Amino acid sequence: MNSFGRLFRVSIFGESHGECVGITIDGCPAGLSLSPEDLAADLERRKGGKQKGTTPRQEEDFPIFKSGIFNGKTTGFPITILFENKNIRSEDYTKQRSIPRPGHADWVAHQKFGGYEDYRGGGHFSARLTAGIVAAAAIAKKLMKDVSIHAEVVEIGGEKDLEKGLQNAIDAKDSVGGIVECRVNGLPVGLGEPWFDSVESVLAHLVFAIPAVRGVEFGTGFAAARMFGSEHNDAIVEMSGKTKTNHAGGVVGGITNGNELVFRLAIKPTSSTPKEQESLNWDTEQVEKFSIKGRHDLCVALRAPVIVEAVAALVLVDFMMLEQKIPTVLS
Amino acid sequence: MNSFGRLFRVSIFGESHGECVGITIDGCPAGLSLSPEDLAADLERRKGGKQKGTTPRQEEDFPIFKSGIFNGKTTGFPITILFENKNIRSEDYTKQRSIPRPGHADWVAHQKFGGYEDYRGGGHFSARLTAGIVAAAAIAKKLMKDVSIHAEVVEIGGEKDLEKGLQNAIDAKDSVGGIVECRVNGLPVGLGEPWFDSVESVLAHLVFAIPAVRGVEFGTGFAAARMFGSEHNDAIVEMSGKTKTNHAGGVVGGITNGNELVFRLAIKPTSSTPKEQESLNWDTEQVEKFSIKGRHDLCVALRAPVIVEAVAALVLVDFMMLEQKIPTVLS
Amino acid sequence: MNSFGRLFRVSIFGESHGECVGITIDGCPAGLSLSPEDLAADLERRKGGKQKGTTPRQEEDFPIFKSGIFNGKTTGFPITILFENKNIRSEDYTKQRSIPRPGHADWVAHQKFGGYEDYRGGGHFSARLTAGIVAAAAIAKKLMKDVSIHAEVVEIGGEKDLEKGLQNAIDAKDSVGGIVECRVNGLPVGLGEPWFDSVESVLAHLVFAIPAVRGVEFGTGFAAARMFGSEHNDAIVEMSGKTKTNHAGGVVGGITNGNELVFRLAIKPTSSTPKEQESLNWDTEQVEKFSIKGRHDLCVALRAPVIVEAVAALVLVDFMMLEQKIPTVLS
Amino acid sequence: MNSFGRLFRVSIFGESHGECVGITIDGCPAGLSLSPEDLAADLERRKGGKQKGTTPRQEEDFPIFKSGIFNGKTTGFPITILFENKNIRSEDYTKQRSIPRPGHADWVAHQKFGGYEDYRGGGHFSARLTAGIVAAAAIAKKLMKDVSIHAEVVEIGGEKDLEKGLQNAIDAKDSVGGIVECRVNGLPVGLGEPWFDSVESVLAHLVFAIPAVRGVEFGTGFAAARMFGSEHNDAIVEMSGKTKTNHAGGVVGGITNGNELVFRLAIKPTSSTPKEQESLNWDTEQVEKFSIKGRHDLCVALRAPVIVEAVAALVLVDFMMLEQKIPTVLS
Repeated sequence: MNSFGRLFRVSIFGESHGECVGITIDGCPAGLSLSPEDLAADLERRKGGKQKGTTPRQEEDFPIFKSGIFNGKTTGFPITILFENKNIRSEDYTKQRSIPRPGHADWVAHQKFGGYEDYRGGGHFSARLTAGIVAAAAIAKKLMKDVSIHAEVVEIGGEKDLEKGLQNAIDAKDSVGGIVECRVNGLPVGLGEPWFDSVESVLAHLVFAIPAVRGVEFGTGFAAARMFGSEHNDAIVEMSGKTKTNHAGGVVGGITNGNELVFRLAIKPTSSTPKEQESLNWDTEQVEKFSIKGRHDLCVALRAPVIVEAVAALVLVDFMMLEQKIPTVLS
Repeated sequence: MNSFGRLFRVSIFGESHGECVGITIDGCPAGLSLSPEDLAADLERRKGGKQKGTTPRQEEDFPIFKSGIFNGKTTGFPITILFENKNIRSEDYTKQRSIPRPGHADWVAHQKFGGYEDYRGGGHFSARLTAGIVAAAAIAKKLMKDVSIHAEVVEIGGEKDLEKGLQNAIDAKDSVGGIVECRVNGLPVGLGEPWFDSVESVLAHLVFAIPAVRGVEFGTGFAAARMFGSEHNDAIVEMSGKTKTNHAGGVVGGITNGNELVFRLAIKPTSSTPKEQESLNWDTEQVEKFSIKGRHDLCVALRAPVIVEAVAALVLVDFMMLEQKIPTVLS
Repeated sequence: MNSFGRLFRVSIFGESHGECVGITIDGCPAGLSLSPEDLAADLERRKGGKQKGTTPRQEEDFPIFKSGIFNGKTTGFPITILFENKNIRSEDYTKQRSIPRPGHADWVAHQKFGGYEDYRGGGHFSARLTAGIVAAAAIAKKLMKDVSIHAEVVEIGGEKDLEKGLQNAIDAKDSVGGIVECRVNGLPVGLGEPWFDSVESVLAHLVFAIPAVRGVEFGTGFAAARMFGSEHNDAIVEMSGKTKTNHAGGVVGGITNGNELVFRLAIKPTSSTPKEQESLNWDTEQVEKFSIKGRHDLCVALRAPVIVEAVAALVLVDFMMLEQKIPTVLS
Repeated sequence: MNSFGRLFRVSIFGESHGECVGITIDGCPAGLSLSPEDLAADLERRKGGKQKGTTPRQEEDFPIFKSGIFNGKTTGFPITILFENKNIRSEDYTKQRSIPRPGHADWVAHQKFGGYEDYRGGGHFSARLTAGIVAAAAIAKKLMKDVSIHAEVVEIGGEKDLEKGLQNAIDAKDSVGGIVECRVNGLPVGLGEPWFDSVESVLAHLVFAIPAVRGVEFGTGFAAARMFGSEHNDAIVEMSGKTKTNHAGGVVGGITNGNELVFRLAIKPTSSTPKEQESLNWDTEQVEKFSIKGRHDLCVALRAPVIVEAVAALVLVDFMMLEQKIPTVLS
């Protein structure tokens, strides 16, 4: 369903062109200072329009605290945060509806929800719902003050020179994919479990909740499949658990080992490419050519880092609470 | 913890050198014919020793049904299956204990569980626990009679010619990693949800529960990050939802679209390499050289396919039940 | 935490004197017609002021749908409903704060949440949160069109003549408790499980979530403890499962048997009695006498029936969905 | 399903006349000393035959630890405990099967599980499954060393003189019900939550998992419904939270207040009465008279106290862990 987490549990709701999108956080300890300003930096990063390759859309993403905050501090009860939808254009979304866009959820949503889904702007599938996720994660980050989480784009369209990768797409008048890498420092040893609650399992679970992610790898990842054991093994060299190399990416046996946690994601090219495409028209039952209008991100990977950090923060704060590394009431 | 699934829920327990390993399946519909023979083929595949590169160990993996079966059929109540551990050698495991093996969970387990963990043969971390997972999945497969799940090794040590990849490792006297690919046919349209319960999320969650997995990708996966949108998008060409290409690997917006479900895993080289290694001795606090004795799989990826199929089956049967594609009582 | 249900899952949030109270419903099938009018009758019943013994407060409890509804129908995605708090008087709640009111959560909340709790009007403990529960249950009731749920007060202050029981309290200038009985007809045979998911277990769980409930009994209940087996046993007399008597109250072995489901609740007298009381002043550390000002319900049981029906509806719709008695998309 | 608990989670399995009954405990901290002797006293109390009114059956209830214990201590991994079924008589249980016994689950089980249920001796519905629950609870009790839980029968057949109540039943050649009371001392302030996770909610949930329970009440319970507010309110008189009276039974607003936790259960008369009864024969579709043979408990309430203590212990240890009152590894 639409909830995730065991002790720090988030629930998302809302639609792109409905009243709002939002999130409820249940399980946040009482006593954390919290104001909209604490969320501002990450919400700002999530918005597009600031860099080449992202849309110049100017939504105002102002978080409205509806519950769980009193006198500027968390109360220990559910925190609900809304982002009201404004300036929704009343255009006729039904016009183009009969042609499900390739790469989008139009067709599967229609099949699964019997045509009752809110299809305007992607509805509940819209990346606008990540506003709530980023907001909740900003709270999670505040709870883990000794942990630093940093994600960045490390490749666009196969180019490590990001400007060049983007220019290739602009020149080709096409959208393009990319790779995002996330590094986490300051984690305690001992988060996670073998088997179903391994750190990789729970992180991968939430990482694939991000639209457009097609792969995830930890440490050396897919390259490990091409290595010999003697190359890949990380020798422990200090009593703290520090290893000589970090091919494991900070997790062994599903459990953090105190070294830097490293993972990478593959993000597909934006489905809404400027190029002409074809798809089936479900009214005429014919394959038709069509173009997607409007301004879209050429490379959605560019907006992903803050969302990747967010899902990492949500997963890690929950593991920290399970290990009693965060008290139930802050003092 | 050690349970997974919403309506078809499995719970694992046991240790490599304790009394047994086992699994409990809660939520299996009543009325399914079931005998140990139904599990035999997959349990046989899980065992090593039949092919070059796997250990010639000869454990008997006979599943003992302890509950939930009556007159050869499931009752609708929990099915507990045990695999008793036999021929456990009473050797002194404590001897080598002070040197945590690189790539293994020795060190993190010791830190997290305060030295109380059963370290013999990997204890609860041992791949022997996959016997239960494979057994439960054989039941899941029987419940999904129109669905076929097939996994295979497609690359060893970077070589698509598997014999050659393995020979390279044998020649190098080293262990080696590999890539496993899984393809699922016959799935209905509409399994999964956007966001937290996407098919990719839940599959990746369970795939990373398999020891030694370092990465997972769906459809075109990491290669999608290097493509243009116009290349990657799959045009829908039939009313059934069939697409011209299948770069998405059968899942769009987190939901199955009726095309073949395709995913690939990176499996690291076996941590127990024949080569001499070094690690910290936690008694002497010195880095020491040591060798791992005994016979081990050179390429653990070779034994992975049946386990990969198993986790896929467990995830998919649960999604099928959530969509009411499997009745609560079979007739 | 603040969520309940397996397939039809509700999450509550909000405070009495904060921005709002509300609820999110996750798992409601797509295609159900829904408007604020569908919730109006039950929300109206929940309000006080219409009958002797309830407060003449006039809050406007208008449900605002924030998500999950499109073109007047449910979409299959989370439905968030808000009740904005209006006319909150800005009086100084801190004045009386140092004396925790007997029977209220003031003292335990302060201890548990370290003083960070929103204490104004009971905060998250306030019965105002039942507005969300009643709203969600009105949706659940609509999904179970063949099931009728009816609760009523059957005793006030030990009197079956309710007017008399209430008059006794008015004469004594005191608050008073009562008994509420709920009867459900039209349930299918086979809801519930033995042991942890028995119908009684899950119903009792949610019934005790209602503030002021001190006991619950099914069928003959506590009187059964004073009966012989030959008196209590219900003989099955029809192939439909109909029994001659219904001492079991419609549940045997944790599972509905097709007879009327019957349960009763004990509701304590309103803690806010008009009488002078004593409690410890946690600033002076002295026991002090004090009176609670303002208008309060003399008998909170009078407002309970619609809430009792609500929790019954939430529990039963979830059991119905687990048994596939309600489709995932309505047609 | 067949699991309960959030951090200390138990899963039951097995049938009365199958291979075994058993339980798995997931989430028990590492480092707790544990041997079968620790469970012996409570398992002995659970057995019948020692007192008038219970059956002289002599099963051997020896707990076999199958996992999770190493060198006499818990490892932090799942603990599976089996009770093998011995001396199962191979009589023809099918003979009497066509007449579902009143008060038993025969008929509902048959309807719900389509005839696939193991009906021998009650199968999975059998009270024999409480052996596992009592065993798990003995572990929970050991984890809460400052908490004392004591339950006892306080009434049989309406008589507080228990001998007399039992003699009435013996004289009437009938079975009889009773009341069990449980008192818990030493709990910290602050366990539980308002609403869905109130202490009463979770306790009542598990109490109704005990077969034959028909009602539960906390503190003054149903009597509270007949009191005035000024009588019922408990004045706080000490800074520790101690109240002058304890009508609330130790829980206010769903949260423990440090006073004695008190609750009572109504247990129906044993369904298997020695008296002749009638029920529908589902083969002949006629109501027939019949008698239940064999020796049965006249008053099942007599065996209930240790089981009531058990469910209380399972609920409370979980709340203690949620409040970080028990470490993840014991030292």
